[in-house]
Parts: sequence; C-alpha cells; structure tokens
Amino acid sequence: MAVATLTLEQLCINSIRFLAIDAVEKAKSGHPGLPMGAAPMAFVLWDQFMRFNPKNPKWFNRDRFVLSAGHGCMLQYALMYLAGYDSVTLDEIKNFRQWGSKTPGHPENFETPGIEVTTGPLGQGIANAVGLAIAEAHLAAKFNKPDLTLVDHYTYVILGDGCNMEGISGEACSLAGHLGLGKLIALYDDNHISIDGSTDIAFTEDVSKRFEAYGWHVLHVQDGNTDLEGIARAIAEAKSVTDKPTLIKVTTTIGYGSPNKANTAGVHGAALGEAEIKLTRENLGWTYDPFVVPDEALAHTRKAIERGASYEAEWQETWAQYKTKYPQEAAEFDRLLSGKLPEGWDKVLPTYKPEDKALASRKHSEICLNALAPVLPELIGGSADLTHSNLTELEISGNFQKGAYENRNIHFGVREHGMGAICNGIALHGSGLIPYGATFLVFTDYMRGAIRLSALAECGVIWVMTHDSVALGEDGPTHQPVETIASLRAIPDLTVIRPADGTETSGAYKVAIENARKNRPTLLALSRQGLPNLAGSSIEGVGKGGYTVIGCDGTPDLILIGTGSEVNLCVKAAEQLAAEGKKVRVVSMPSTELFEAQDAAYKESMLPKAVTKRLVVEAGTTFGWHKYAGSEGDILGIDTFGASAPGGVCMEKFGFTVDNVLSRAKALLG
Amino acid sequence: MAVATLTLEQLCINSIRFLAIDAVEKAKSGHPGLPMGAAPMAFVLWDQFMRFNPKNPKWFNRDRFVLSAGHGCMLQYALMYLAGYDSVTLDEIKNFRQWGSKTPGHPENFETPGIEVTTGPLGQGIANAVGLAIAEAHLAAKFNKPDLTLVDHYTYVILGDGCNMEGISGEACSLAGHLGLGKLIALYDDNHISIDGSTDIAFTEDVSKRFEAYGWHVLHVQDGNTDLEGIARAIAEAKSVTDKPTLIKVTTTIGYGSPNKANTAGVHGAALGEAEIKLTRENLGWTYDPFVVPDEALAHTRKAIERGASYEAEWQETWAQYKTKYPQEAAEFDRLLSGKLPEGWDKVLPTYKPEDKALASRKHSEICLNALAPVLPELIGGSADLTHSNLTELEISGNFQKGAYENRNIHFGVREHGMGAICNGIALHGSGLIPYGATFLVFTDYMRGAIRLSALAECGVIWVMTHDSVALGEDGPTHQPVETIASLRAIPDLTVIRPADGTETSGAYKVAIENARKNRPTLLALSRQGLPNLAGSSIEGVGKGGYTVIGCDGTPDLILIGTGSEVNLCVKAAEQLAAEGKKVRVVSMPSTELFEAQDAAYKESMLPKAVTKRLVVEAGTTFGWHKYAGSEGDILGIDTFGASAPGGVCMEKFGFTVDNVLSRAKALLG
Repeated sequence: MAVATLTLEQLCINSIRFLAIDAVEKAKSGHPGLPMGAAPMAFVLWDQFMRFNPKNPKWFNRDRFVLSAGHGCMLQYALMYLAGYDSVTLDEIKNFRQWGSKTPGHPENFETPGIEVTTGPLGQGIANAVGLAIAEAHLAAKFNKPDLTLVDHYTYVILGDGCNMEGISGEACSLAGHLGLGKLIALYDDNHISIDGSTDIAFTEDVSKRFEAYGWHVLHVQDGNTDLEGIARAIAEAKSVTDKPTLIKVTTTIGYGSPNKANTAGVHGAALGEAEIKLTRENLGWTYDPFVVPDEALAHTRKAIERGASYEAEWQETWAQYKTKYPQEAAEFDRLLSGKLPEGWDKVLPTYKPEDKALASRKHSEICLNALAPVLPELIGGSADLTHSNLTELEISGNFQKGAYENRNIHFGVREHGMGAICNGIALHGSGLIPYGATFLVFTDYMRGAIRLSALAECGVIWVMTHDSVALGEDGPTHQPVETIASLRAIPDLTVIRPADGTETSGAYKVAIENARKNRPTLLALSRQGLPNLAGSSIEGVGKGGYTVIGCDGTPDLILIGTGSEVNLCVKAAEQLAAEGKKVRVVSMPSTELFEAQDAAYKESMLPKAVTKRLVVEAGTTFGWHKYAGSEGDILGIDTFGASAPGGVCMEKFGFTVDNVLSRAKALLG
Repeated sequence: MAVATLTLEQLCINSIRFLAIDAVEKAKSGHPGLPMGAAPMAFVLWDQFMRFNPKNPKWFNRDRFVLSAGHGCMLQYALMYLAGYDSVTLDEIKNFRQWGSKTPGHPENFETPGIEVTTGPLGQGIANAVGLAIAEAHLAAKFNKPDLTLVDHYTYVILGDGCNMEGISGEACSLAGHLGLGKLIALYDDNHISIDGSTDIAFTEDVSKRFEAYGWHVLHVQDGNTDLEGIARAIAEAKSVTDKPTLIKVTTTIGYGSPNKANTAGVHGAALGEAEIKLTRENLGWTYDPFVVPDEALAHTRKAIERGASYEAEWQETWAQYKTKYPQEAAEFDRLLSGKLPEGWDKVLPTYKPEDKALASRKHSEICLNALAPVLPELIGGSADLTHSNLTELEISGNFQKGAYENRNIHFGVREHGMGAICNGIALHGSGLIPYGATFLVFTDYMRGAIRLSALAECGVIWVMTHDSVALGEDGPTHQPVETIASLRAIPDLTVIRPADGTETSGAYKVAIENARKNRPTLLALSRQGLPNLAGSSIEGVGKGGYTVIGCDGTPDLILIGTGSEVNLCVKAAEQLAAEGKKVRVVSMPSTELFEAQDAAYKESMLPKAVTKRLVVEAGTTFGWHKYAGSEGDILGIDTFGASAPGGVCMEKFGFTVDNVLSRAKALLG
C-alpha cells in the first residue's frame, strides 16, 4: 500500500509500531511483537479515553495506565513520547535499554516520570491496577461530595496471555470482581502467542469465561488489528458498567505488519532484523526513516498536552471550590497528597515497663495499628484471611466492600501474592495512603515477587508478618519460618524489623510509618507467643537497628546479640553471667538494615572490633549472621526445618533456653 | 437422636468426626471444622472407591489421595487409622501435634507412611496432585500394553475454599484442564467459611464456572452432609469421564454436628471446648467416650486391609505376567521403582578444556540434559514458558500433551508456582521419575513456596534456573537476581549450585541427579552469558562444593573465593598477582551447602583459618558471605538492585572486572 492511503489514525498507530521496531533494532534487544499488535488498542485508549496531563505526570486525578505486559514497554514509551511527556524524548527512545536511560527494559516508575508502576514480572501489573482502583474507590468514597467530585479516574490496563496465566492475576482479579471495582478496565491483548510458541501448547482455557466467573463484565473485540471503532465502542461500554470491572478481550496479531514474523513467537522478544524491518516498512506503507514520526501524527498525538492542561485546569477549579466549601476535608486531602504526617502522630505509640503484661508482638502490633488508625486515616489494609491471627483489624473502621469503599479493613482472601501487589498498587497511587498487608511470616514465600517489587518500585507498604519462628508451635514445619527472615533481609531496600517486646513494636511502627512516607517498605516479623517487656528496650533504639539493652562497665568480655523473642533469653543469660562476675553486653538487633545505616562510630560503639567473643541468638537460620558474630563468635540458630509440637517444646528442643544460651556463652568465654 | 438410629455409614462417619474432635481437644490445637464437614465425602471415597493397601502404603499402583486442605489433617489421620495403616495408631492420634508424633499439625509425607505429599500451605496439594496425575499418565503411556495394564490409578484430592483462592491452584488446574488429565478427581469442600468468616467477605466468584473455563468436568453435590449416594454417584460419574479432570463441588457445613459452632469460622481452627463437644455428642447421638470407635465401624473400615491385599495381589499377578511378556520394559520399570541409576550413567557428562568454546552455563545445562535424556528416561520436565531461554528441551522427545503422555517435554506455561508444585508431585509419585522445572532465577520468587516444600518434603527435583545475575543485561532490575541466590542458599536441605564453566555444569548435574535419587532437590543457577572454560575446574570439585582451581606453593597470602561467572575474574586476577610474586589461591565455591557437608579437615585445607586475607567475588548480595570472608576479609558483591543495560556494561558498572578484583585484592594484601 502507498503512504497516501494511510489515515491519520494509521499514521499514529504505525508511529507507535515503528518507534518500537526501531528502538528494539537499535538496542538489538527488546520485545517488538506486543507493541506492533497492541498499538491500535493503545492508540484508541490514549487518544480517545485516557485523561492525563503529560506536562504534569503526577496530576492527582489522572487516569492510571498500567502496562501489565511490561516487556512490551516500547509501546508505553512510544505513547508517552507521542503524547509529549518530558521524560521520554526521542533521544531516550534511541537510548532504549541503555545504562542510565529513562527507557529501561521494563517500565520502572522510579526511573521514568509518567510510569505508574513497575512491571515485567508477569501478573504484577494487573494486580497493582486492582490496588490503584481500590485507592481511587476509597478516596472517592471518602472525599467526594454530592456537589463536588474531587476523586474520579479510571485505571486502564493492557495485559497479555502471560499475565493471565500467572496465579497472581487470578487472585487479584477474583478480588476485584468481588469488590465490584467498576472503574478498572483491562484490555487483554489476546494474541495467542507466548514465548514457547502458540498458547495452544499450554493455555487453552476460556479466559473470558473465567473472568465472568470472577464477576467481571467481559467484552470481545474480534479484530483488534484494524477495528478501531470496535475498540472504542468496547471501552465506552466498559465505562458505562460501573459496578463491575471490565475485561475487554482484544484479539490481535503479535508483530502485526511483519510479513514473515507476525503471529510467531519469534517476534515476541527479539529484534526483527534489518531485512524484515524493510519488508515490514513496505508492507505497512511506511516510508519514514527510523525514529521519524510524521508531522501530522505528532501534531495529532501532541494534542494530549492541551487536553491534559485543560483536564487539570478543570479539576483545579473543582479543587478550589472544594477547599472553600469543605476546608476540613480539603486540608486532610492536601496533607495526604503532600505525604506529610500529622504533627506528633507518633505520640500515640505506647511504651511499656517490665511489669506490664507480656503480650505477643502481634498483639502489640494490633495495639499500634489501632492507636495509629484515628491519627493516620491513610492507614488501610488487612490480611490474607488471617485477620484474627495476624491481629490487623482496625476497630474504628468497617470492612472495605462494594458499597462501603470508605472503610479501611480489606479482606484479601487467601491470596498472598495478589495482596502484595494490590498493596503496592495502593501505595503507588501516590495519594498518601499507607497500605499494609498481613499473613504468616512463612507465607512471605507466596508473595515474595510482590515484596521484592515493593522495595524496587519504592512502595511505602507495611508488611505485617506474624508467627515468626518455630515458637508458633503445633502447625509444624510447613508453617514455621526458619530461613524466612534471612531471605527477606537479603532483599535490598527492604527494612526488616523483628521487635523484642511492646516498646520495640512501637519503635517498629514508628520506622515503618516514616519509611512509608519515604516510599520505602518495611516488614515486621512478629511473635505468636507472649514476650516479656524489657527494661532496656526503646523506640529510639529500634530506629538505630541495634542498641544496648543491657550494658556493663568497661569493655565487655562478651556481647550477646539477640532479636525478637530471643532478646529476653540473652537478657536472662546476661544477668546470670553478670552475677558470676562477667562483663556482658546485650545488643538487641531488631533490624540489621537500620543498624547498617548508622555511621561507623555508632556501629563500632555497639560492636567493638576488639570484642570478638560474640554470641548471636535468633530462632532462625544462622545464614547471614556471621557478619556480626565474626570469625571468633558463635551463633545459636536453627539450620534445619522445624517440627510440630507446642511452641514452648519446640523452642526448648531447638535449644532456645536460658541454659543453652548460658552454656554457649560460657564456651565462648572459655 | 438415639444411637440405635445410626446406620453403619453414620457410625463410620461420626467415628471420623469424633476422632478429629477429640484429638484436637486433647491437643488444644488444630482444625476440627473441616474433618466434621468433609467426613461424609471422605468416607464414601475411601470406602467405595479408593484402591490402596494400608499394609503396604508404597504399593505402586495405589490411588493417590491428597488432602490439599492440609489443616484438616485429622480427617486423614482418622481415615488412615480406620483403614488400618500401621503408621497412624490410636496412640498417635492421641498424640496429635506433639513432638515426635506421626500425627503432626499438617500432613507430612516424610513423617507418616501413607501420606503422599506435604500440605498445609494452601493450594500446594491440588497442584501436587496435578503432578501425581501427570506421573501416572506418563508411566501409563510408557509402560502399559494393549494386553496388560501395569499403571492405572486415580489421584483424588480434597480441597477447600482456601486452596481455591490461591493462585497456585488456578495455575495448576488450568494446566490440568489443558492436559485433559482424566484420572484426576478433586472434591471441593464448599463450606462457605474461611478463617476470616463467611467466604462472602472476599470470595464470591463462581468456582464451578471457573473450572469449566479451565476445561474441567464439573459436578455438584448439593447436600454433602448427608447425601452419601449423591457423593458416590458423582465420584462414579467423574471416573467415567476420562478425557477431563473432574471437580466435584460438595456443599457441606463446616463443623457439622456442633449445635453452636457449625457453619462458623470459630470451628475452623480451634478446639470445640468441653461443653460444645458434649452438645455435639448429644446432637449426633454419639455415646462413645473420647477416642473410642464403635466395633462395628472399625470392623467395617478395616475391611480396607483385606481389600488392599487383594488389589495388590491382583496387580502383582499382572506384574508377574508383564515381566514374562515384556522383560525389557519390566527391567526398566523395576529399575525406576528401585530408584537405582543405570550403571555408568554419568559417563555421558562432558568435560571441557580451556581451548573449548566459551558457552553459557545454561547452554552447558542443555548439553547435559540432552546427554542424560537417553540414558535416564526418568528425566521429565520443562520450563514456565521460557524453554528457549532456559534451554531445557529434550531433543529426543516430543511435548507432553493430551494424547501424547509418553513425551517428556512439559510446557508449564507462565505458571512458576504451579510448575514447582507439579514437579514436587511428580517426584512424590515415588516411581523414580526425576522432574525438572525451569525459569529465570529471579522468578524463583514466584515459586518459592514450592521450592521450600521440595526441600522439606524430600522431593528429588532439579530446579534449572538461568539468567543468574545482572550480567543478563537489558531486561533490567526486575529480571536481575541480586539477593536471589542468597535467599535460596538459606533454605535448609536445598542444594544450590552455581557452576563456573562447562565442566562444573556437568558436575552440577552429577550432584543433582544423585540428590534426586536421595529425594533431595537441587537448584542450578546458570548464566545467560558465555563463560570461559577453566583449566582447574572439575566434576569432583563440584561434588565437594568448594575446591582449588588455582593453587600456589605454601600458605597463600590471599584466597580468592568465586562462584559461577566470577571464578574466571578471580583466576585472571590471581594469574596477575602470581606474576607479581604473590601467593594466591583461587577457590571455586559452586555450592556452599556441599562445601559445608565436607569434613572439617577438608574445609580447613581449602580455607585455612590462618589465611585471613580472603576476597569473595560473586555478582550478587554480600549477604551470607561473611562466613567465608571472615572478619578480616572482603566481599565484592552487589547490595543494590541492578539496572537495565547490556550485560557487559552492567558487570563493569557494578565492579565485576579483573581490574576491580585486583584492586580489592591488593587492598587486602596491603
């Protein structure tokens, strides 16, 4: 076909396709197939429906767009360039997948303004989108007034076969259907091809029927390659159904336009190659050089700038009225968006004395959450069906349900991975909400994909993980964490805190809330069993990660380092050793990450290099503790799986008694 | 009702219920609700359908039973006691959830003969069952003859709402539907209650419709509490449909029989309490003391012993005929079941010289898999839709598909967690198959629940994980493992191996296959990029976990410790240091677990305590390496997330160059 025959829409769509083709070719790396096939639906969505302001990517009331099939990121970069985002210039597109570029190999919200969430690991994006839609629904229910609609946006997703095969997407979409999140609209790029070839080899289920079973509104655009009106009609219909999320199955051809590679796995994840690109240009009537976008196409797509300014201006007007009419709510809304915490918020966190009742740290967590709930209305979250074991219910609120989106207790169901990504999405809504998600510590294994992303993608989430050691008892080794805390400590930028008592739990929440406001996740490892309150524990100490709970005169003969429930064993042992004339220091180390963040002088003052007799005590793997035990030190840990028995029996059998700490300590002292 | 009115079936069913009630009450811990509600379906299944031999729990051709809702384990223990398994005596039931008992808090195959798989972490069991059914289908296709059916059993599952909410079950069941595993029959205990309360609060999807969408045959028993005939009819109908797995939704009442707690979350996971137990006894007309089973009930259920002996005898007769008629196949079948490896199997593993081409270790893995495939027909597996990236295809075989179950290449789809549990199930079929599952190393995060269970439940699986560091390049931080290897090393009883070159990859497979035969899983971390073949590498060295690849005369001044792709950097740096007159040893440490298993003398010989100048080099987190670096040593690692750029650029930017190794080494040498 000749270029003259291309309509304006075709020019725009092909601009997307060839920006993707050319960028992948230049990088010799990337995924051209999805952008080529999904360009029409993406163009229609961005051109006719999406409300956003390219010059202010953080404008609050924008529609959120999530490319769940993150490998197709050149689609999103092309859309952003065409729409006029400052972050994605033509130079950045030419620099696709290179060191320091704004166009990394998968969309990264922390690198590229305008990208909402980090995708690539399949299924995360659609689950994040459920979180974005929950955040919108919650804020709308909370702030909108009969006469003024302050919060009102859609969350749009493009997802592929890969996302739909992942369990996490099923979890999140089942919940989205249950919650009736009507402003969530997902376009399913149904291209029948995954990396291994035709989806026929592994994926022949009826996806539409499955989503109907979840309670979604489901539509089908049979020709997603050329039927732009059909796509537009479907999106419009999706918007009209307000009590259910919508899945629009859009049947497309992966690598559309490539004469020899379209509809093959070969076009999924590799550059087309010079020869095939030439043929594709011919086939699509594309006479432009690499990275050249026709003027008329750019002129059209850049209208997004003007549109966006006007959308935002309109909203600013509403906001101005809102501030006048509802100053109290406006102040709260403003505070949330600013990410500021209320003055003195942390004063509600309790501290404890040794004579106070020994409670489980999960119980202290419940006390903290409920103390914070009235002060921090941004706290919203819940458990993966373990609410009364994790103790995460906010008493002042009801359940977040269809028709009750103003509530703050979310019942995630037994869907840990979905919960994780949903919490990430709530955080990345960027509206000041502080989400928390809870399950048993050992089941972080089910949601590790999302926990890792919370750290990478800078999500201010609190992970409330209870039943933190073999001391949980009878449920046995499938439920008893052993290596779990170590495996979480290894994740960069995740702060793991295992508090020793009530005061330390308060300290942990202080850190967690402050972290959340710095867009950093915190994971709390909390006990099932009661923990005595220590004389030496402190909120400030937790902030430093490691600190002295029992000191001694002069240089210690021995340092005992404990975390969580084992600090008390160290304290008891130290008291006895002191009575025997030994100079013993006990360092409570609730968070190695926070300790590492202190300056060298502080660290040396806590763990002097000269004191080589050190005993670490933690009811978990020894893995990772040699750094603090040192070559001459010892570690009392558990390097096997646990066992089913009452918690006290487990602790004793695995050696977590004062006597055993004493005997290991004495062995070191010689 | 009076006891006289109880039918024999009711006596049996109530025996199950009260064994569960009484055991949980005695332990003051456990889950009575599921056994009370699911007892009728379980009784009908075990009484009328299941073919097994209680006196030989390992009889090959038994039907497999999986309690996916593992918290209800007292159901299974009661069934096993009633059926006459030696492992579960009345004393063991009285010892429920106590240290050293055969009746731990969740079913554990490694503790209790007769338990097929370890469940408790929800969703794993149903996914294991898919693996069991795959194993059966494969062996049947391979060994059965038109005149002799050697392999022919069903896999039955009881699963609950929790299992059905978990993404892993969706992944595995979608694949089971695709594969048309007709001998997989799952009974869904539809009791509308999960821990947080009514499933209405989080789980209102249409489960039956979802399974239909997966391609399952779906049935519904409306009154699972009393309609025993309906249950039996449904199971019979399920058996009659041979080309689809069947889900039988059995609507029940959790805690059936308890006047005040039935149909509440309160009965899910806590003892009923003395008063309620009394009322339940009255309500169900149960006049027997705790732990007393009526004689007529026991007499009936113990008929399973005679039935089982006759089932096995019948099969032994078939087997005898088979051995006569098909001696070659019989010998192979026999070898598989014995768990013996063929003589000299490991001779096919290649070794390499420095002049051989530098290939990626994932490529070497492909070479090993394909060298082993003809020698070890028990190798069966595949990738989660990354076959041509993980390089896991066995060239001598086709795809395992409906109608082609004799094949060995399984396409798992983008379903990592499901793949993990399916591989565990194949291993736990106990028929000598060695399953392997593959994805990118970073996505072990998606399947960690199953990897952990592979170690705990003693599954001889090989996890083939490729793209093992930031050197994978452009895909960026979402795809680049940093903390991943450390987090896997922390798992007890999992052998993690990161080979440095071709010879070490062969060594890794030697260990992995031998581990599999000892029911231990092995995880291989393999490179995307080419690795030079080292002069000093060896298969034997890998077996020891750490060994010298470059030595020196006398006591070294410095030891460089490297793994995988970084060993070559160490070698190059050592050569240069040697040229400068330094005495340097390079230890390749492909597996810290294997190294730890060596005796103290060997470990001291490799890493003498006296040599404190040590530099560890690994393109991953430093977490966990201080044990080997020692207090005076140094670690060149990556404690941040990666970045999107070509692999070589990434390695350079993160400091993985010979120059940087040299400079860190010289800083240590002073």
